[in-house]
Amino acid sequence: MAVDHRNEKSQRLVSSQSAYPLMADGHSVITHVTILVFLRGKRYGTLNSRGVKFSLKICRDPFGQFVLVLKAGCSTGPDRVHRRNQSMTPTITAFERSPDRGRGLARDMRVRWALEEVGQPYHVRLLSFSGMKEPAHLALHPFGQIPTYEEDGLALFESGSIVFHIAQRHAGLLPEDANARARATTWMFAALNTVEPPIVELGMAKVLESNEAWYEQRLPMLKERVRNRLRQLSDRLGNADWLDGEFSAGDLLMVSVLLRLGPIGIVEEYPNLSAYVARGEARPAYKRAFAAQLAVFNAAQ
Amino acid sequence: MAVDHRNEKSQRLVSSQSAYPLMADGHSVITHVTILVFLRGKRYGTLNSRGVKFSLKICRDPFGQFVLVLKAGCSTGPDRVHRRNQSMTPTITAFERSPDRGRGLARDMRVRWALEEVGQPYHVRLLSFSGMKEPAHLALHPFGQIPTYEEDGLALFESGSIVFHIAQRHAGLLPEDANARARATTWMFAALNTVEPPIVELGMAKVLESNEAWYEQRLPMLKERVRNRLRQLSDRLGNADWLDGEFSAGDLLMVSVLLRLGPIGIVEEYPNLSAYVARGEARPAYKRAFAAQLAVFNAAQ
Repeated sequence: MAVDHRNEKSQRLVSSQSAYPLMADGHSVITHVTILVFLRGKRYGTLNSRGVKFSLKICRDPFGQFVLVLKAGCSTGPDRVHRRNQSMTPTITAFERSPDRGRGLARDMRVRWALEEVGQPYHVRLLSFSGMKEPAHLALHPFGQIPTYEEDGLALFESGSIVFHIAQRHAGLLPEDANARARATTWMFAALNTVEPPIVELGMAKVLESNEAWYEQRLPMLKERVRNRLRQLSDRLGNADWLDGEFSAGDLLMVSVLLRLGPIGIVEEYPNLSAYVARGEARPAYKRAFAAQLAVFNAAQ
Repeated sequence: MAVDHRNEKSQRLVSSQSAYPLMADGHSVITHVTILVFLRGKRYGTLNSRGVKFSLKICRDPFGQFVLVLKAGCSTGPDRVHRRNQSMTPTITAFERSPDRGRGLARDMRVRWALEEVGQPYHVRLLSFSGMKEPAHLALHPFGQIPTYEEDGLALFESGSIVFHIAQRHAGLLPEDANARARATTWMFAALNTVEPPIVELGMAKVLESNEAWYEQRLPMLKERVRNRLRQLSDRLGNADWLDGEFSAGDLLMVSVLLRLGPIGIVEEYPNLSAYVARGEARPAYKRAFAAQLAVFNAAQ
């Protein structure tokens, strides 16, 4: 263990480090790093990078200066490291028999795609429709849906949140630059909260109301609500390949949302969106995810 | 400037630090901190804490060991620090005349509430309905809506994304523990992607279709879709004050979503949800945000 108090006399930088090697003999690991950096403001947040936990906060040091405090802590021996590694592979849930007949429209597809993009292996637990409403599953997902995500003591639901979690834990789905990252996150919310709802409504009307007298009368209005969003999205995308720079989790969700319109033919009214969706589908990670969910459906036949 | 290479001989920890004080005489600032920590895996991500930028990644060091690399960089003199401080106050957009007549249902309310919770002052730029469709605003918000959020070279849209951005930059809206933080984020997505859509549809039907012959016939189905979600949410909330531990951005958005049902009376069918919404409305930050948006509407009369 090495502890170092640097520049304390200048009241400007205090740094203490307690170091244990991690990978070598199994009981060696960095347990604690503290760096104080002058800065104005606030507590920053917490990061947890697979066994090493970081917290950053901004506060005043004993001399009244604003300082940034970074702490990284990890206490683990060889057994615990081993267990962590084994439990690292996340488990998601998916339909035993997807109502989309394996066309890649169930929401586990979004999570599979994200996991494939970052190269993270995963387990799948299949659920029947009745199983999704049982207490064991409702404990994981209060709305009785798929997918869920379980990993190392963490259980999540909501495909958007799961994709975001994966994107935060791995490189490849969110830019490194903080502003670009916030913009990519904005496109995740835009896909799910602004573009998807009118698309879901169009689909729900078909499922729930196609035998009603008003179904045909409402259809133009439902389609116009979708077209309104697609027109705006098309204007923003222009000639770009992706919504904001490189492919991101925002594109992953937006392409997934637009794919729900597949058989209806509305996307094709906007050639740049059509090409955008095709670019998404052409990604090797998309293809692997698609094949994996289709294999589940085919196996159930 | 102090540079320190610690434990290089043991091939286990390399730490270099170049230190300049920040706040004292104006040209003193930590410009660079690099810490290498043994860890398995991947690049972690980038943080930007108001002028100090962090990047964390996991890679192999020259000796083939997995290491975690933290970099924190900041180059700034007194003028730049001063300018940063001035441009730090974000600007949001809101309706000049909100269609909800100041009842706090417009989506700027969610952002105002978040800013009030964390104690961050903000500017508001008001927009007419025609102004929202002009190119200048569409450049900020491709779907021509409010709110937007501008701060220090960053422009965001989507209230969910803006609330998340605020929650990441400040303490008080997301837990520090990484798993609890992921669960709170899940509730943000659940509020916006699972609970809000059927509530919006119920409201849209009234706005767009209340004169249609089918409106009354569809109403029970629309309300049942809302009740289905509220029943599940009520079951999950139980006797708890908030959805997962302390009040979080997930609660902020869920309460905001449920408030849209206000005059319809469905929330009241679930006493624990009714009390949950009341707890949200009782928060001083909510009250300040509500008063601020109501003042805008009243001033426009």
